[in-house]
Amino acid sequence: MKEIIIDSKEDIFSSFTRTALYYETDQMGIIHHSNYIRWFEEARLHYMKEIGLPYDALERMGIIIPVLSVECRYRLPVHYDETVRIYMSITKFNGVKMRVAYEVRDEQTGELRSEGASEHGFVDRDFKPVRMKRDYPEVYEILNAHVIPAQK
Amino acid sequence: MKEIIIDSKEDIFSSFTRTALYYETDQMGIIHHSNYIRWFEEARLHYMKEIGLPYDALERMGIIIPVLSVECRYRLPVHYDETVRIYMSITKFNGVKMRVAYEVRDEQTGELRSEGASEHGFVDRDFKPVRMKRDYPEVYEILNAHVIPAQK
Amino acid sequence: MKEIIIDSKEDIFSSFTRTALYYETDQMGIIHHSNYIRWFEEARLHYMKEIGLPYDALERMGIIIPVLSVECRYRLPVHYDETVRIYMSITKFNGVKMRVAYEVRDEQTGELRSEGASEHGFVDRDFKPVRMKRDYPEVYEILNAHVIPAQK
Amino acid sequence: MKEIIIDSKEDIFSSFTRTALYYETDQMGIIHHSNYIRWFEEARLHYMKEIGLPYDALERMGIIIPVLSVECRYRLPVHYDETVRIYMSITKFNGVKMRVAYEVRDEQTGELRSEGASEHGFVDRDFKPVRMKRDYPEVYEILNAHVIPAQK
Repeated sequence: MKEIIIDSKEDIFSSFTRTALYYETDQMGIIHHSNYIRWFEEARLHYMKEIGLPYDALERMGIIIPVLSVECRYRLPVHYDETVRIYMSITKFNGVKMRVAYEVRDEQTGELRSEGASEHGFVDRDFKPVRMKRDYPEVYEILNAHVIPAQK
Repeated sequence: MKEIIIDSKEDIFSSFTRTALYYETDQMGIIHHSNYIRWFEEARLHYMKEIGLPYDALERMGIIIPVLSVECRYRLPVHYDETVRIYMSITKFNGVKMRVAYEVRDEQTGELRSEGASEHGFVDRDFKPVRMKRDYPEVYEILNAHVIPAQK
Repeated sequence: MKEIIIDSKEDIFSSFTRTALYYETDQMGIIHHSNYIRWFEEARLHYMKEIGLPYDALERMGIIIPVLSVECRYRLPVHYDETVRIYMSITKFNGVKMRVAYEVRDEQTGELRSEGASEHGFVDRDFKPVRMKRDYPEVYEILNAHVIPAQK
Repeated sequence: MKEIIIDSKEDIFSSFTRTALYYETDQMGIIHHSNYIRWFEEARLHYMKEIGLPYDALERMGIIIPVLSVECRYRLPVHYDETVRIYMSITKFNGVKMRVAYEVRDEQTGELRSEGASEHGFVDRDFKPVRMKRDYPEVYEILNAHVIPAQK
């Protein structure tokens, strides 16, 4: 199963460009693998702002969206100052949990560098689950409208 | 399937104690999820030193062990200055790839905070695969002797 | 002027041991310079716990201690898995501001790797200054008792 | 003394825009102070690319530019998703050492958030000093042409 559908232009809901930074390298001479998890977050929060749900506004409303799980498969290394494009889409959302898939590709060649996914819950400031559909219907609708199920 | 077997004391090949640092927190007031990927690395390299394979010595021998994949499931948050014990074991090794499983537990209560796994290849300085059994039999033997297959 | 006095054993109020981590390296093959600023924080918060002022307890009391300035002079690089000892002392404290000095030395040889200092204010949760002597006399007394002025 | 001269447009040799990332926050709810040291590096390497000295090309030529010292004065906090403009200029360069000054300002209001400086040496892959004027005259000339001495 392929989680992100980027075959047709219509399906790409978000992509985000990022140049690898020197302090992200390690002594292997490549970007340290932990940074991709941070890039995923950058892409995700960038996307949420794009669809009208800036994360700081959600936090002020009392919605915290912790990460429940994360996974990343490293295909090819990224080096300092290389520019990648991070594709992402929400592949599942049911008002209680959300799944997001990511692909990191070379900006110029489109070559796949890594791919991954993260799952998220929706909780209040005390980390108690909120039911988005009931408690924040307007946020629920926006997220729900942006789901692109993973390709079979 | 449970990847780490920590039911019997004999099965615990390695555990590593770590106190969460202030700069690892984020504005959610918990340790940022990307840091667990770094803690896994700390535990893994600590373990390799413990079994006689310090990573810098391997690098000097020309063996680089990049991460092929990583995954983490976050059960409960860790807060600043809380101490966790990270359990890990090599659950697969065939001379070409290695799989390592991790559990992060509260140092005092044993409560599970997160669990995960990483997969690794063995390459030379040019990132070309090395066959451990043939090229580095002594390293191969040590790793092979420390595999604890995941519990069914 | 030498900020830290470590010539006589009596003057060493705190030291803290730290082994350099793989993810702290960069492609120069040394610990990235930004990490020393984080090590200083580790040493500082370790010290505050040691003298009975754990930082999370202070935050719960409503005392936030932001960094006003930081400086670091890099003498010799630190490499992966090298262990350093970080010496620190509070060199100034007047109830409004605090200055802390640091030295990072090779654990075994004592060789100086870097040295630095940081300055801190005391504010409440809204980042408004608090007067420690008046508002938190018991905290004031502890900090005041631990000042070791820099050597002329 | 003011290190950066940004009063006249002609004097601004470089500025660089950066939006604060979520993983850069800490539980104080602001960008952790260590990240400014990383932002300075981003700005510096961005600038060097701009003036025709991309850092990876220098490393390939055998020129490593380690940080000798760094300092930062924090004026006002930066929060998640705020955009700052980082001004920088080379304030000293003599072929052996270089000093760079930085200002971090709110992108919209121009309000000063922090300011700092870093000093750098020029060494070869074995961390032995190189004399830029003799060994790399073309690099020397470019750097020398971009020095803007600090304002008295």
